[in-house]
Amino acid sequence: MGIRIGMGVDVHQLGEGRDLMLGGVHVPHDKGAIGHSDADVLLHAICDALLGALALGDIGVHFPDTSAEFKGIDSKILLRRTYELVQKEGYRIVNIDSTLLLEAPKIKPFVPQMQQTIAEILGLTIRDVSIKATTNEQMGYVGRKEGVVAYATVLLES
Amino acid sequence: MGIRIGMGVDVHQLGEGRDLMLGGVHVPHDKGAIGHSDADVLLHAICDALLGALALGDIGVHFPDTSAEFKGIDSKILLRRTYELVQKEGYRIVNIDSTLLLEAPKIKPFVPQMQQTIAEILGLTIRDVSIKATTNEQMGYVGRKEGVVAYATVLLES
Amino acid sequence: MGIRIGMGVDVHQLGEGRDLMLGGVHVPHDKGAIGHSDADVLLHAICDALLGALALGDIGVHFPDTSAEFKGIDSKILLRRTYELVQKEGYRIVNIDSTLLLEAPKIKPFVPQMQQTIAEILGLTIRDVSIKATTNEQMGYVGRKEGVVAYATVLLES
Ligand SMILES: [Zn+2]
Ligand SMILES: [Zn+2]
Ligand SMILES: [Zn+2]
Repeated sequence: MGIRIGMGVDVHQLGEGRDLMLGGVHVPHDKGAIGHSDADVLLHAICDALLGALALGDIGVHFPDTSAEFKGIDSKILLRRTYELVQKEGYRIVNIDSTLLLEAPKIKPFVPQMQQTIAEILGLTIRDVSIKATTNEQMGYVGRKEGVVAYATVLLES
Repeated sequence: MGIRIGMGVDVHQLGEGRDLMLGGVHVPHDKGAIGHSDADVLLHAICDALLGALALGDIGVHFPDTSAEFKGIDSKILLRRTYELVQKEGYRIVNIDSTLLLEAPKIKPFVPQMQQTIAEILGLTIRDVSIKATTNEQMGYVGRKEGVVAYATVLLES
Repeated sequence: MGIRIGMGVDVHQLGEGRDLMLGGVHVPHDKGAIGHSDADVLLHAICDALLGALALGDIGVHFPDTSAEFKGIDSKILLRRTYELVQKEGYRIVNIDSTLLLEAPKIKPFVPQMQQTIAEILGLTIRDVSIKATTNEQMGYVGRKEGVVAYATVLLES
């Protein structure tokens, strides 16, 4: 059995006039994450964890933010493409764990839908896609509601 | 063999008039971590890693900071309850690794006692409970001694 | 089969008049990381992940920044020594994944050389040493180019 570990970190600014996309789900909020794509910080961290487990580069290498192709793109498409790369290498996902650091809004009501969305893309059950969240206790740029951070870790098996 | 990965991140403010509880141990210091429970950032990160490995939600779901039941609670109790959930799912811990980000005090003298405390709760040896620490090099809220961050990762097997 | 997980986080200030060493490679830049050793944040995070997987302490325990022996030391030496400790315990590395958080410069052109450098020290192929990078989107001390952060995770087997 070949088993591999991967991790991802992603950071986005929050600003007005943007939709807040988290885990493939639109979360109603007065601010959204700013980025070249739809700026889904959670899906980006998961993409990076998947790529990293197989040393396939990172999300910036595969989906450059200088490319018109990825302008405003739905990150669910990026996750699907990333997983195709993983499958091409002969690996599948054992489980994913992740944590969102954001001060507001409360994402708890949206977590099951995020899990379902990600699980469908990756051919998993929701018991293999963990999404946790915590505030930054009012400290730093996350605490001032200026940004959001996501961490993800993934276990793959061949 | 079923093997699973989990990760946790936790953040607390530091303030005067509070005990500094880290890894279940009281660390003498002029400030302590602020929170609804005893604010043990390391135990909270480990709890989240354990829950996340099995997609059981997060510490905020299981032990809400709006509940009187958990006001000032010893986080060792939270860790014990979390591990019961893990065992109920048929899993045990292979090993835990963690890092504390805090500017002061030096926690090195307290690490063996933290390892022993956590190992006892989880039925492990201290060789399966790693606690590391680093400063934030005087940068950010950790560097200004306003807060503390803990990261934990865990490997489970069925 | 004994399998173990480890994680590492490291933080350094950036300042003028220092070489920027990342992953064992000199990256041309107007600033470098500040520290007692050569301040290679990526190698330090990997060292900590290796030590953490076996609960061998942390880099500050093994290579104290108060010791003249480690003043200005090439962190590749620290990585080699760390790996000797891992091997002495009867373990080898399955794979390493890592992420650098820095605002500038772009490290993408240097990643293959970093992978090669680390792989050689650890007796791995570059497919087992993943190095990813992201900016901090102009936020916090990383976003202000005052510091750099590295995260690493590692899987070991006996
Ligand atoms: Zn992103
Ligand atoms: Zn907490
Ligand atoms: Zn360092």
